[in-house]
Amino acid sequence: MTMTDLTLPITGMTCGGCVRSVTAVLQALPGVDSVSVTLTPGQAQVRYDEAQVLPAQLAAVVEDAGFEVVV
Amino acid sequence: MTMTDLTLPITGMTCGGCVRSVTAVLQALPGVDSVSVTLTPGQAQVRYDEAQVLPAQLAAVVEDAGFEVVV
Repeated sequence: MTMTDLTLPITGMTCGGCVRSVTAVLQALPGVDSVSVTLTPGQAQVRYDEAQVLPAQLAAVVEDAGFEVVV
Repeated sequence: MTMTDLTLPITGMTCGGCVRSVTAVLQALPGVDSVSVTLTPGQAQVRYDEAQVLPAQLAAVVEDAGFEVVV
């Protein structure tokens, strides 16, 4: 199991409720080990098992929750 | 196709970003026709096809996004 750290820059989070929402959708993914989301700067730091989940899937759940991942 | 209107009381939304998030996850469900989410009161008014989606599924996606549906 190879853990990878990724920082996803995210726009559209404007309060603690947004932070909880992004945290919840990322933590729900199989293969995600830990998640730390901050408002300033707007980003999620994710540690995940690259055998179980792809960066594009991490970005997709954030987008599906109504926020934007800056590419 | 029988459309049903449901109001889901929701806690944990504290800004417009939260409103966008709840709106996004509900609109993504098959069978959901329209969604109107407000902060005050905290709720989602959903019009959906009861042959395609259940109230429990509407509540589940809101919970999965990090908010609480008041039962």
